[in-house]
Amino acid sequence: MTRITAVDVYDLRFPTSLSADGSDAMNKDADYSAAYVVLRTDAPDVEGFGFTFTIGRGNDICVLAAQQRAEPLIGRSVEELVGDLGGIYRELKSDSQLRWLGPEKGVEHLALAAVMNALWDLAARQAGKPLWRLLADMSPEQLVDVADLQYLSDVLTRDEAIAILAELEPTRAARIAELDASGYPCYTTSAGWLGYSDDKLRRLCQEAMDAGYRHVKLKVGASLEDDIRRCRIAREVIGWDANLMIDANQVWDVPEAIEWVQALAGFKPLWIEEPTSPDDVLGHAAIRRAVAPIGVATGEHGMNRVLFKQLFQAGAIDFCQLDSARLASINEILAVYLMAKKFDVPVCPHAGGVGLCELVQHLSVFDYVAVSGSLENRVTEYVDHLHEHFVDPCIVENGAYVLPSQPGYSAEIYETTLAEYAFPDGTYWRQARQENPVVTTQRTSG
Amino acid sequence: MTRITAVDVYDLRFPTSLSADGSDAMNKDADYSAAYVVLRTDAPDVEGFGFTFTIGRGNDICVLAAQQRAEPLIGRSVEELVGDLGGIYRELKSDSQLRWLGPEKGVEHLALAAVMNALWDLAARQAGKPLWRLLADMSPEQLVDVADLQYLSDVLTRDEAIAILAELEPTRAARIAELDASGYPCYTTSAGWLGYSDDKLRRLCQEAMDAGYRHVKLKVGASLEDDIRRCRIAREVIGWDANLMIDANQVWDVPEAIEWVQALAGFKPLWIEEPTSPDDVLGHAAIRRAVAPIGVATGEHGMNRVLFKQLFQAGAIDFCQLDSARLASINEILAVYLMAKKFDVPVCPHAGGVGLCELVQHLSVFDYVAVSGSLENRVTEYVDHLHEHFVDPCIVENGAYVLPSQPGYSAEIYETTLAEYAFPDGTYWRQARQENPVVTTQRTSG
Repeated sequence: MTRITAVDVYDLRFPTSLSADGSDAMNKDADYSAAYVVLRTDAPDVEGFGFTFTIGRGNDICVLAAQQRAEPLIGRSVEELVGDLGGIYRELKSDSQLRWLGPEKGVEHLALAAVMNALWDLAARQAGKPLWRLLADMSPEQLVDVADLQYLSDVLTRDEAIAILAELEPTRAARIAELDASGYPCYTTSAGWLGYSDDKLRRLCQEAMDAGYRHVKLKVGASLEDDIRRCRIAREVIGWDANLMIDANQVWDVPEAIEWVQALAGFKPLWIEEPTSPDDVLGHAAIRRAVAPIGVATGEHGMNRVLFKQLFQAGAIDFCQLDSARLASINEILAVYLMAKKFDVPVCPHAGGVGLCELVQHLSVFDYVAVSGSLENRVTEYVDHLHEHFVDPCIVENGAYVLPSQPGYSAEIYETTLAEYAFPDGTYWRQARQENPVVTTQRTSG
Repeated sequence: MTRITAVDVYDLRFPTSLSADGSDAMNKDADYSAAYVVLRTDAPDVEGFGFTFTIGRGNDICVLAAQQRAEPLIGRSVEELVGDLGGIYRELKSDSQLRWLGPEKGVEHLALAAVMNALWDLAARQAGKPLWRLLADMSPEQLVDVADLQYLSDVLTRDEAIAILAELEPTRAARIAELDASGYPCYTTSAGWLGYSDDKLRRLCQEAMDAGYRHVKLKVGASLEDDIRRCRIAREVIGWDANLMIDANQVWDVPEAIEWVQALAGFKPLWIEEPTSPDDVLGHAAIRRAVAPIGVATGEHGMNRVLFKQLFQAGAIDFCQLDSARLASINEILAVYLMAKKFDVPVCPHAGGVGLCELVQHLSVFDYVAVSGSLENRVTEYVDHLHEHFVDPCIVENGAYVLPSQPGYSAEIYETTLAEYAFPDGTYWRQARQENPVVTTQRTSG
């Protein structure tokens, strides 16, 4: 029997704010970071890797929360844990004292996501399969057993969930073969960060088209005049057959969102992303009614499955952008995919950041293979940042994710990266402090 | 000029799980705790005290988050801070890196609540007034300037907020005089904790009636058979003129909540509290429609003003139970009170825990004096626990809170309590570990 002997959690931070990568109307100085969990065992080469994603300060808080969340794993049998991923999920999430601090939201939920992501990675490695394949090899009943359906029975019962999965089970293999040939379609956000110059925007839009993408996303919401100019540049480069999406990162109140989006309607955006508070189900529904046929997209800050349930119930969104490191891993994500299927809302997962692309490729493949069976209106985010730090990085060719083939959840980060970007004592951060004592992510730019 | 020189944050934990105080269907082993913030200055006797409330493990996470949240205060002028409590609130909440970890929910929001509670306490002390009086002496424009109206303009504009406050401004003094004579009505939860025996329940219900209360609240949701028996006991003791409330602490899905509450309808509860996930606006609306005339109450886990906005918009609740240590202090609480007034929903704040009664008495008084002008259907929670640790404890007489008279927000805790209950090194916890090495709140009862 193999046992968990230790859980190491690393505070990794990358100095992305220096290049304005990741800049938008809400987040001007993001230092992409990860609270990175490593499950150690008493067997050589049996490990699990997972993380949650943050943007700098406070990553240390998530690290501590993940250490605390993972405590009950120490000494437990790996076979037992990976044999009952629903059970360990329910045990960890039910800690009533930690639950009080959410419940099921904020730092404690991010920490649970990091720990459960590592357990799912461990399970896939133990099975010798990429995570999407581990899931695609599970029966409808097995999948529903691990899915978190608590608080959802008014829209999705266990029987309905099983029926959804059973419908596509006989044809899973055909869709796997299809994705194996063509990959899963993605779009790029790399072109449109708010801090980039017009020239850089023009060049990156052209590069995206040249690389085979059919979608380009721009950050908006700081200045309407700038947004109009930048949308015009994007349309000049990508034409009107390709898709343009816009993303406001929550900066508007509801009436302001409606007015601003209507002012950009001439550029025919496919969707407006995060027009207002991510918590505002009824606000998103009102915006959607007002700006149609422009779609409404949100979900990267969608805190839990109960929020998504209501977004679906209220007809508030056209695109569901769940986040693989904010929802509590596969257990909760499965529930959101199942509801999305029932309400016929396409899921286009949020990615970028640190390693989110590595995770979401597994989710999108599984969705097509086993849940939605559709690629219509589905396109998964891709951002070409920081993949070099991953042992099994995602591969994008011709605007599509290539099917992951290595065992696990593609979450493992190189030891050399840990040594360099661990905060505050990795070699990068030591060097940065020597050069400039105030260059740390502790309030670099208030 | 006086400056903030340090911010000390204490991890205080009380071993309440040993007596089943605070036990309910969701939270079986609560150790009432506080992440307690003390703002130190370079002037003798100029200090500010505030806290957020938790139930044990994870309080340390909130302590660290509060320390980080408060960093920008160090070195700042007290006069400047208390002169612009809206400005410092917006500055702290806008830290985009920390915002990512919510946004505006969970640990980071609890930490912001603790820090802002201490700043409001400091402001009231500097003014030489109890907090409710500081607020009651502010003009409508001043109050609206500090209120956080972000994301609310679809239901409440700045002008509407000012008009609501202006309407009652000329008559504030009369209502202050009224409360000075009679106090603000409260109810007791002390009788109905789930872990108490039937005999203890019967005795405590009788004691509540004898003490002048007109409301008694029972915890329900673990066993319908037990709930029926306990409701029967309560009604036998309090009769049918007094009010019985029931509280499920989020244990049900929506259909289960409806079924269970209907099974208890014969006991004519005034409200069912927290029937399901606190995030489920549409679920609460469905429950409310199904169980009327039994009222629906929620809010102690209401994460932020955007959630309350939707609860009001959807007609989801009959009673708003905002929490003084979960919402980000007066700035956000004011916004909720103003919306509640507009939607004609009575606010009956959640209290109990550690020091919540001390805080909410100020809120209820201010609401009556300046916002709602009504006591109809309004009753504020009171739990007779842990008040002995407060320098200026709340006083309840004849089922009503006596108007607080000391300067501040009544949040200061005795130094002797800090020495005894600081975790893990206070004298109580050292002693407990000597007697039983596993008696700590670190996973006492998994």
